[in-house]
Amino acid sequence: MAVRTIEVRERVMARNNEIAAEVRSRLAEYGVTAINLVSSPGSGKTTLLERTLAVLGEEMGIAIITGDVQTQNDADRLAAYTPRVVNAVVTNGACHLDALQVLTAVDEIDLNRTRLLFIENVGNLVCPASWDLGEKEMIVLFAVTEGEDKPLKYPKMFQNARRVVMTKIDLLPHVPFDMDRAVANALSVNPALEVIHVSALTGQGLDRWFDFLRAAARPVSTSG
Amino acid sequence: MAVRTIEVRERVMARNNEIAAEVRSRLAEYGVTAINLVSSPGSGKTTLLERTLAVLGEEMGIAIITGDVQTQNDADRLAAYTPRVVNAVVTNGACHLDALQVLTAVDEIDLNRTRLLFIENVGNLVCPASWDLGEKEMIVLFAVTEGEDKPLKYPKMFQNARRVVMTKIDLLPHVPFDMDRAVANALSVNPALEVIHVSALTGQGLDRWFDFLRAAARPVSTSG
Repeated sequence: MAVRTIEVRERVMARNNEIAAEVRSRLAEYGVTAINLVSSPGSGKTTLLERTLAVLGEEMGIAIITGDVQTQNDADRLAAYTPRVVNAVVTNGACHLDALQVLTAVDEIDLNRTRLLFIENVGNLVCPASWDLGEKEMIVLFAVTEGEDKPLKYPKMFQNARRVVMTKIDLLPHVPFDMDRAVANALSVNPALEVIHVSALTGQGLDRWFDFLRAAARPVSTSG
Repeated sequence: MAVRTIEVRERVMARNNEIAAEVRSRLAEYGVTAINLVSSPGSGKTTLLERTLAVLGEEMGIAIITGDVQTQNDADRLAAYTPRVVNAVVTNGACHLDALQVLTAVDEIDLNRTRLLFIENVGNLVCPASWDLGEKEMIVLFAVTEGEDKPLKYPKMFQNARRVVMTKIDLLPHVPFDMDRAVANALSVNPALEVIHVSALTGQGLDRWFDFLRAAARPVSTSG
């Protein structure tokens, strides 16, 4: 029975990859950069997006797709920070977004007014790692209130990501968290990872995060 | 294709429930109380178990099965606190333990010397909710570093649990966490939930947790 499940899953995954390619090509056509934001529940994805919308929302024409298992709480929170529509996808129990959900949500977005698209995945360190959503890159958030061994325990997520954002660094004086060890663990599973440190609460490190976003969404020059 | 996946899943779940019944009956035969501990990654399951083993390990004959996606880090941490074997189950990518894994691990445990069995599930707020492992009860950990709306976003987990342990309460002065709202959210999805507040770091609230465990593992009296 286990084998049968895997067979079905592989066909579903192959179809997902086809749809992700469709999303990717649609976004490229409009020059939109998509970032797939993943983490444990409670690592601070929505709070970081609130701060990002408040500062860069207008400047960068940010659009948002949020995935949630049951509610649209995150979408409601984010809607307070942007005049644009926040696209909520309720996964009805699934532990990740899939490309078809993103494609459907993208249909509702005015891509002409968008340079940067955040896809806030379901809070989960396992399932989202396998599902291509058509993004340019996956970014994983890692809070200092979690264990330093998260990258070792969930390596696929850290291998597939290009950047890791260490969040809630304002809490470092109050938690038994060894940042050097955490970063070393992350680099041990993916030596190419770029690490950014932020506190969405105090604002520490956010300038570097914003600079990265501006660079990520810069159109590739086509002139010689 | 989606429909086909669900059909297969339902047959797998039915088989899981049969095996869970087998686990439950085996444990009942030996008078062992099993607790399925679930939470987000980083909510403090392993640290709470370390403290529990240190105080109650001998007194209650505690046995442990830990589930992890890739590593056996949690099992290694716990092994430092008990002379008994800690049973590590590596799920190879799956986001939850299943009853067959637990049944296999239970075969390795000396049930005559065991009164309380902790099953430390994979850190995940979605998948474990659907998988009966043969436990007496599921307990969900909820850290004050997460969002107050976790019970609304992951209701199935909170509906299936009988108790919620609020963890890391030593951080309350440093985080924007409204405990009353968090508890109200938990009770709104499951009014029968019992709430325990602990800090495994400072020890606050652990006495009540230990008292609960002693009561949970007390043999039901068969005398009139």
